[in-house]
Amino acid sequence: METRISVIGGGSWATALVKILTANIDKVCWYMRNEQAIEHIRATKHNPNYLSDVHLNVAKLHLTSSLDEAVAFSDYIILCIPSAFLSDELEKLTLPLSDKNIFSAIKGIEPKSGMIVGEYLQKVHCVPDNQIGVVAGPCHAEEVALERLSYLTIACTDEEKARFVADAMTRPFVKTKISDDVIGIEYGAMLKNIYALAAGIAHGLGYGDNFQSVLMSNAIREMERYIKHIYKIKRNINHSAYLGDLLVTAYSLFSRNRTFGTMIGKGYTVKSTMAEMNMVAEGYYATKSAYNINLNQEKPSRTPILNAVYKVLYENKRAKTVFAELTNELN
Amino acid sequence: METRISVIGGGSWATALVKILTANIDKVCWYMRNEQAIEHIRATKHNPNYLSDVHLNVAKLHLTSSLDEAVAFSDYIILCIPSAFLSDELEKLTLPLSDKNIFSAIKGIEPKSGMIVGEYLQKVHCVPDNQIGVVAGPCHAEEVALERLSYLTIACTDEEKARFVADAMTRPFVKTKISDDVIGIEYGAMLKNIYALAAGIAHGLGYGDNFQSVLMSNAIREMERYIKHIYKIKRNINHSAYLGDLLVTAYSLFSRNRTFGTMIGKGYTVKSTMAEMNMVAEGYYATKSAYNINLNQEKPSRTPILNAVYKVLYENKRAKTVFAELTNELN
Repeated sequence: METRISVIGGGSWATALVKILTANIDKVCWYMRNEQAIEHIRATKHNPNYLSDVHLNVAKLHLTSSLDEAVAFSDYIILCIPSAFLSDELEKLTLPLSDKNIFSAIKGIEPKSGMIVGEYLQKVHCVPDNQIGVVAGPCHAEEVALERLSYLTIACTDEEKARFVADAMTRPFVKTKISDDVIGIEYGAMLKNIYALAAGIAHGLGYGDNFQSVLMSNAIREMERYIKHIYKIKRNINHSAYLGDLLVTAYSLFSRNRTFGTMIGKGYTVKSTMAEMNMVAEGYYATKSAYNINLNQEKPSRTPILNAVYKVLYENKRAKTVFAELTNELN
Repeated sequence: METRISVIGGGSWATALVKILTANIDKVCWYMRNEQAIEHIRATKHNPNYLSDVHLNVAKLHLTSSLDEAVAFSDYIILCIPSAFLSDELEKLTLPLSDKNIFSAIKGIEPKSGMIVGEYLQKVHCVPDNQIGVVAGPCHAEEVALERLSYLTIACTDEEKARFVADAMTRPFVKTKISDDVIGIEYGAMLKNIYALAAGIAHGLGYGDNFQSVLMSNAIREMERYIKHIYKIKRNINHSAYLGDLLVTAYSLFSRNRTFGTMIGKGYTVKSTMAEMNMVAEGYYATKSAYNINLNQEKPSRTPILNAVYKVLYENKRAKTVFAELTNELN
């Protein structure tokens, strides 16, 4: 393919996507802040910090620590940095984003604005609707690195653009499909982090597998109601991009959101959990935003799980008490 | 409560149900074939073979190795023996079942007739529709034994009877709800064993968590289509009794169906897997019946996962090839 793609971010998912894209695209621009990491990749063909076993096709890579350069390089930009750093990163830009096709592989909320990434790009960076897309899982980057079969859903209201990105990401071990439900998939991906956090809290409190399956069965119904309120189109919530993504995250023992929740469930405070993990789980920010977004709806949807997590994380309520109450609202 | 209940079967799930029922019901009749086990329970208040840590309230138990006695004892019969032994057991009866309320906690297919238990009771034992019920999970017996919170769905077209059984099974650690979808829940419970087997095969073949979540996302949609073909009523397939039951089984490393599948995926033959496990997973029988039931529909529903498992188990096709083909039918 002749069209160029730029990947923004130096973490696991960015590394996995770069591995995939360089197999299909002649030139992939890869932006990361860390210049030492760039030097290391140039010298050794491996990312020193993430998925370091993955061999990178450096001949096809244009590595840069200049965001302007990465944005200027391509028509298609894949955003792949933690949502917590998104606005700070994009503030560095001196070029507009409004003429680019921007696909978010972030799956979170931009915490300062409280908006999902697509909405943030539209409102703050004036990117038109049909130039905004999402790259959705279910997809652990580690398994993509190991070439274990994974499925991606690429969403954009402009079908041709969705198809282009999907083709660029198709590999023998990556199957892709396209969708036009950008908003639904982004909200779903945000909510699943909260439900993974809830699964962690339940686990930390000593609830077992029977309860976890009931929690997930309720979570997917809650997700369906929530998204339907925000953006009512015909969708099957049990497609991979929604239910699959929820399951791979909430049943994963490696999920940061689940781990965060488990510590809370075991009695750590939010503050000490953050200190201990030396990072913030996306679900932490997502909880506040998702809660407020729902509250500001004319008729908020019923979200017992979201509300429970909110109470624990932001109202300093005891997880044990809150979850005991939650069990009465599930079925 | 004054009404009596008889539990038929001496395994884990029967033991867990007896534990629950004796807390709510004055007299519970418990049938098992094994007279030594009965003697042991009388003497020690523990089942020697299953959930042996569970203390049993023997004062409320009427233990018997006579099926006639157990059936005569109560208006409500809970069937809780492996489906493979059901017809042989019921042949011992000299009493009719047709005036009893019979709730199946079996969740499988009666292999000789190829029918789900409710249908089998109706056709072979002339039990009327409104006297047939189901006790559905998601529920590992082991967790109930440990008093970890679990949810049961009790289904019967006669709401009063469903409510009676639900009340008899409600405990601080068991929440119950009722449903009228006896047929849908039974078919769902049967199918979930097949999907757990499929999850095992995929695991045995080396597929990872990303794929498993896609498989489950497709499995629940396949289950929805299948059940809708058989019995079309309004149901939310994401309720605990369907999706929850699927998840707790397919994500459990202890599920016999999943273990069976894993061995097949690792290259064992069906015969050697059965010999090695010294038992037959319910999903093995279910696969054949579910496949044929679907085939005999006027317009069979699309069931790529069921078909793949059928090919592996009954047409001697290589799991690796069959699942490689299956991956193209999932999304």
